[in-house]
Amino acid sequence: MNDSKKLSTEAYKGVRDFYPEDQAVQNYIFKTWASFVEKCGYAEYNASILEPADLYRGKNAENEEIINEQTYTFTDRGDREVTLRPEMTPTVARMVAGKRRELGFPLRLYSIQNFFRYERPQKGRLREFWQLNVDLFGAESKAADTEIIAMAYGLMHAFGAKEGDFEIRVNSRQALNKLIQELGIEEVYDERARKLYRLLDAQKKMTEEEFAAGLREIDVAPEKLLSHEMPEDVAAVVDPLRNTGFMNVKYDPTVVRGFDYYTGVVFEVFDTNPENNRSLFGGGRYDNLLSLFGEEVPAVGFGMGDVTIRDFLQSRNLIPEYVPATHVYIAVPSPEFALSAQTFAGELRRDGVNVAIDFGEKKLGDQIKTADKHKIPYVIVLGSDEIESKEVIVRELKTGEEKKMPIHKLAEFFLKR
Amino acid sequence: MNDSKKLSTEAYKGVRDFYPEDQAVQNYIFKTWASFVEKCGYAEYNASILEPADLYRGKNAENEEIINEQTYTFTDRGDREVTLRPEMTPTVARMVAGKRRELGFPLRLYSIQNFFRYERPQKGRLREFWQLNVDLFGAESKAADTEIIAMAYGLMHAFGAKEGDFEIRVNSRQALNKLIQELGIEEVYDERARKLYRLLDAQKKMTEEEFAAGLREIDVAPEKLLSHEMPEDVAAVVDPLRNTGFMNVKYDPTVVRGFDYYTGVVFEVFDTNPENNRSLFGGGRYDNLLSLFGEEVPAVGFGMGDVTIRDFLQSRNLIPEYVPATHVYIAVPSPEFALSAQTFAGELRRDGVNVAIDFGEKKLGDQIKTADKHKIPYVIVLGSDEIESKEVIVRELKTGEEKKMPIHKLAEFFLKR
Repeated sequence: MNDSKKLSTEAYKGVRDFYPEDQAVQNYIFKTWASFVEKCGYAEYNASILEPADLYRGKNAENEEIINEQTYTFTDRGDREVTLRPEMTPTVARMVAGKRRELGFPLRLYSIQNFFRYERPQKGRLREFWQLNVDLFGAESKAADTEIIAMAYGLMHAFGAKEGDFEIRVNSRQALNKLIQELGIEEVYDERARKLYRLLDAQKKMTEEEFAAGLREIDVAPEKLLSHEMPEDVAAVVDPLRNTGFMNVKYDPTVVRGFDYYTGVVFEVFDTNPENNRSLFGGGRYDNLLSLFGEEVPAVGFGMGDVTIRDFLQSRNLIPEYVPATHVYIAVPSPEFALSAQTFAGELRRDGVNVAIDFGEKKLGDQIKTADKHKIPYVIVLGSDEIESKEVIVRELKTGEEKKMPIHKLAEFFLKR
Repeated sequence: MNDSKKLSTEAYKGVRDFYPEDQAVQNYIFKTWASFVEKCGYAEYNASILEPADLYRGKNAENEEIINEQTYTFTDRGDREVTLRPEMTPTVARMVAGKRRELGFPLRLYSIQNFFRYERPQKGRLREFWQLNVDLFGAESKAADTEIIAMAYGLMHAFGAKEGDFEIRVNSRQALNKLIQELGIEEVYDERARKLYRLLDAQKKMTEEEFAAGLREIDVAPEKLLSHEMPEDVAAVVDPLRNTGFMNVKYDPTVVRGFDYYTGVVFEVFDTNPENNRSLFGGGRYDNLLSLFGEEVPAVGFGMGDVTIRDFLQSRNLIPEYVPATHVYIAVPSPEFALSAQTFAGELRRDGVNVAIDFGEKKLGDQIKTADKHKIPYVIVLGSDEIESKEVIVRELKTGEEKKMPIHKLAEFFLKR
């Protein structure tokens, strides 16, 4: 095959390949997510990445625009319009509504899945990302909102973040709606209200002049936005958290959250790094979403994406060093020893050790280099002498240290590391 | 919103929703896969489900047909043709070719991911399925083929299958090519050879008459197919396995495997259940695939799908009973106790217990029913008395048994279960 016909080894635009060391970071994030939310009583669910496009249409004409411009939507050969899901909330709402009578409430669900958005790839924004979604259905109590925000806090701690590293800013859609009314905007979802929400949402990325110009454009006096007291529903959620010692949880009247479906308390977790002061993730209460399916179930939840949290962990040096799952590599003097190595490895595996073997197609030195490239911590060379004497030399690659050991002691040695 | 406008709660055609009990089965399968292949020294990788459509075109015109008729392929707004991956091998070949100089060989990789095929949903075949993919790159030795087949065997055992439950049938593409030559077919990949492969592949689903008619159509005398001796390359792989005691590994001249890219030993694992005698999964050697990307790297591997293995496990009663991750449910007499319950739960969680709480919006009896619906094994009712006395009653829901216990003994009790 000539060069001009070579296939590209590039991935599709805006998505990532995860080689083992990268995948290990993903797995670290996923495991931290899963073990923390299971501690809080959440059960894992999943659904397909393909959903009927109608799921994202909802009631607003603007959604049509979002579907057409921001999602991957196409028509299958059966003339069905399908979308690569851009978020999990509509899916989990669909699933809970579909089995409302069988499921017990309060119902705690989580999933760790991938999503697609059609956007120009940039820092912190890719076309495909992975996200933890946590949702609590069937509870109206403010204690449910408190639980959800406490979990956002707890997750940051589970990743090793300190209280000063982040801040949780809480607002309420009801308070925002009241503001809208005070501004004389009659419909909560009309164009002017939408523009104001978007302006508040973008405020931190704008200069004061840009923000003031935006307010003028929709005819809102800046003083209307200033110094609101903490609304009652926000206080009912924030006070118990601060009383428990979560001092970085604060009321912030500018927190909006992008999605239309929020109805109550909303929150965002911010990176406090002055050079990177931005929203890491967030969520809130969405009590009316299931009515799209003819069911009435209150709900509160949040989503936490892998791209932003990975950036955050990197910037704080919180990603653990790569350690492969494989404990030891067996090198052999020549190909004839490969089957013996496999038998030897089989015994160690039965005792719980993770073992890879070499087939002896290359020189011993090169086999050891392979183990080193894979960052496998130990190597054993298995030849006739070792098989006969039932003793091997275990070499630690990082230090070069060697240790003679009877074969029956190996499993214990590796499992202790 | 009136009823006629209600959104459907159905998933897209041919894909599945996984509620917690179903997801637990998936997780059982995924964990069994991951822990077994890591024992054998394989490292996890991943890539996006979206791939450039060109990746599946290859050299054969027939591939164009497969892309158009059997995959989800669409054009994005940047005029790129993209495919929802139907299998992992082209992706992993792309990734290994892309970093050929940095990666050490032999290289052992695995992934557990989802795939899409555009087909009519039926038993054992869905539009979306999950699959374990195991690939070993950079080894020409027959011992590498042996390792891969031994892993297929080991995985069946890891799921609790007995040797009599399945059979591994091995053949060789080289032997098939020799057969093609004996039949006077000049080109290995011409139309007649393809038809013969497809016929052999489908033989077990056909009557003798249908098979004979198929042979007549491509002008092949049936006696040409009979009683071949085990080819040398198959023997080199099968003999060491049988010598190690894997007695259900056999030579079978009718095993073909669908994909064009196989070049050497191929195998399929069959369910021996006479009512369901079919291929569960398989794989083989594909030494030339990376040449599509201008690299020469020998490779051998297999894929094992969730749909067929789940059916198999179900038919043999090998799926473990559902046990939720949550150890205990805290019920409360009224909503005022929700925050105390949260504090109490927080302490248990710090000790490693997975705890869900109720918010007291319903009667105690209904709260206990919720725990029962979620199959959480234990319930504690937390009221003023319990908070004051620091003693609680732990109720086991299955037996109704109750046990009084000081709070500081709880973590130990739950973690022992």
